[in-house]
Amino acid sequence: MGIIASMPKLLILSYNKDEYTKQIRQADLPGLEIVPDPADCDIVLGEPSKIRDALPLLPKLKWAQSIYAGVEPLVAPDQRRDYVLTNARGVFGELMSEFVFGYLLLHEKKMLERIRSQQQKKWDRAETGWLRGKTIGLLGVGSIGVHLAGTAKHFGMNVWGYTKESETSTQVDRYFHPNSPESDSDTLLSFVKGLDYLVIVLPRTPGTDQMVDAKVLKALPSHALIVNVGRGNAIDEPAIVAALTKNKIAGAILDVTNQEPLPVEHPFWTTPNLLLTFHTSAISYPEDITKLFIENYNLYLEGKPLKYQVDFEKGY
Amino acid sequence: MGIIASMPKLLILSYNKDEYTKQIRQADLPGLEIVPDPADCDIVLGEPSKIRDALPLLPKLKWAQSIYAGVEPLVAPDQRRDYVLTNARGVFGELMSEFVFGYLLLHEKKMLERIRSQQQKKWDRAETGWLRGKTIGLLGVGSIGVHLAGTAKHFGMNVWGYTKESETSTQVDRYFHPNSPESDSDTLLSFVKGLDYLVIVLPRTPGTDQMVDAKVLKALPSHALIVNVGRGNAIDEPAIVAALTKNKIAGAILDVTNQEPLPVEHPFWTTPNLLLTFHTSAISYPEDITKLFIENYNLYLEGKPLKYQVDFEKGY
Repeated sequence: MGIIASMPKLLILSYNKDEYTKQIRQADLPGLEIVPDPADCDIVLGEPSKIRDALPLLPKLKWAQSIYAGVEPLVAPDQRRDYVLTNARGVFGELMSEFVFGYLLLHEKKMLERIRSQQQKKWDRAETGWLRGKTIGLLGVGSIGVHLAGTAKHFGMNVWGYTKESETSTQVDRYFHPNSPESDSDTLLSFVKGLDYLVIVLPRTPGTDQMVDAKVLKALPSHALIVNVGRGNAIDEPAIVAALTKNKIAGAILDVTNQEPLPVEHPFWTTPNLLLTFHTSAISYPEDITKLFIENYNLYLEGKPLKYQVDFEKGY
Repeated sequence: MGIIASMPKLLILSYNKDEYTKQIRQADLPGLEIVPDPADCDIVLGEPSKIRDALPLLPKLKWAQSIYAGVEPLVAPDQRRDYVLTNARGVFGELMSEFVFGYLLLHEKKMLERIRSQQQKKWDRAETGWLRGKTIGLLGVGSIGVHLAGTAKHFGMNVWGYTKESETSTQVDRYFHPNSPESDSDTLLSFVKGLDYLVIVLPRTPGTDQMVDAKVLKALPSHALIVNVGRGNAIDEPAIVAALTKNKIAGAILDVTNQEPLPVEHPFWTTPNLLLTFHTSAISYPEDITKLFIENYNLYLEGKPLKYQVDFEKGY
């Protein structure tokens, strides 16, 4: 166990400050003091943008725990990097699975068509689709992607994964890796050609900008569905509007967009077969994040490496 | 291995006759002959109502394989019972899971509300619900119920089961058994009081008539959802219309109804928060049924007990 020179002092910077304060107090963590003054604290917990705004006021900062997975404001090149940044990981998988498979089933079970038939008092036994045997492609295989892979296997699906990272999940049946650290269009096109569903779970980094462009959309089978639960930058927005308008793909469920909230004049609002879900696919629940903070706080006390450390260069 | 006096002769009685004939021919089962003449055959495969109509013409019948789970026409008291009747089991679980959890997620993720918000160009971040930690109650724990229990555990749910039968699944956290072979209203009410979702997976028998009546509907929490993928007789229809109209329960997804197709004047078409799905939750796919037939045919050849035998007295 490492020697902690003084009592660790935590500053909570969150819209949910009261709830986090209550839950962390209840956990009664050894030695931890929750403080109101940035100048005193060595640990902060909160939303990435709130932490970024406070960075100049945190001279003693050693560790920041983000309550979100995405930490774009903190990994921008002009920000300091002299502390350990950990993000929220491993807590969104379950909620993301509920979201993603819920929407795939909305599509396969023709739920909206059934509702229309009911409104018309029409006994509609048109055959519906199913997940079993279908191929889902995960664009990004981090902790969320791995959880999605597990749910897909539960439903008897084939799982393909496209990732720069190592092959961490045995639930992925087939991995695709770019040949170069830069983009590798050929591998990406081979990946999407075989898919029934493309699920985007990428962080926002310069490398993920517009990965799903007109070429990728053209390579996808016309019955394929896209779900984006990562970040809006991964999709070429005019290209997906064109693909949907011309029925080149079957549909898209976009939880994230480049601009949020989406401006009222944006074509996404009225693009056919495009569903918007307003960045609600996985919410940070204080119970989940507090558990993760406690786990990391114990490692911090012991002087051990923290879990879910962000690589400032990679941006995730 | 038993001695088979003559070559087994199979008659196929199905709307999907060509597909079944093709698939069973492809399987090239030892000794099996597919015949057109009822008088010759000792095995039939098909829809229960078609088999019932042919029963008087089948003097040599030894075994009938239903392609459905529900075999009401064949277990009616006035029908002969001098043959082994097997039904389709173990093949609908996956499809039923897709259906049931798809509709639970439609509700929890407020998908219809989100679509309305999009139509109004409203950036709607209202918090949605989740399955994790919720309690699902299975009214009937046969092979479909057991499969649903597995999916519920995958989603981190609590699983309760109400059944007259033995406790065949370890995925059910808590079992409720009626105290008498007849109805046991107290146990049923205790069961439903703790539920977030009540999923009915009962066969149609005299004992399951109107099990979900006004008292059960009153005992259910007001946020609870009902899904019926069993048979329509299990629900008191005027009582559920009243409960939904007065918001005493949150919603109902009824795949089955007492009369099918539903008459146009039936109140279900326009009852609030009631979704009809027209008996499509699990379709008999010839590939699935053929697999099951092959398995049973091999047991038949060996003179061993067949799988999924129907108890004519119980009716399932």
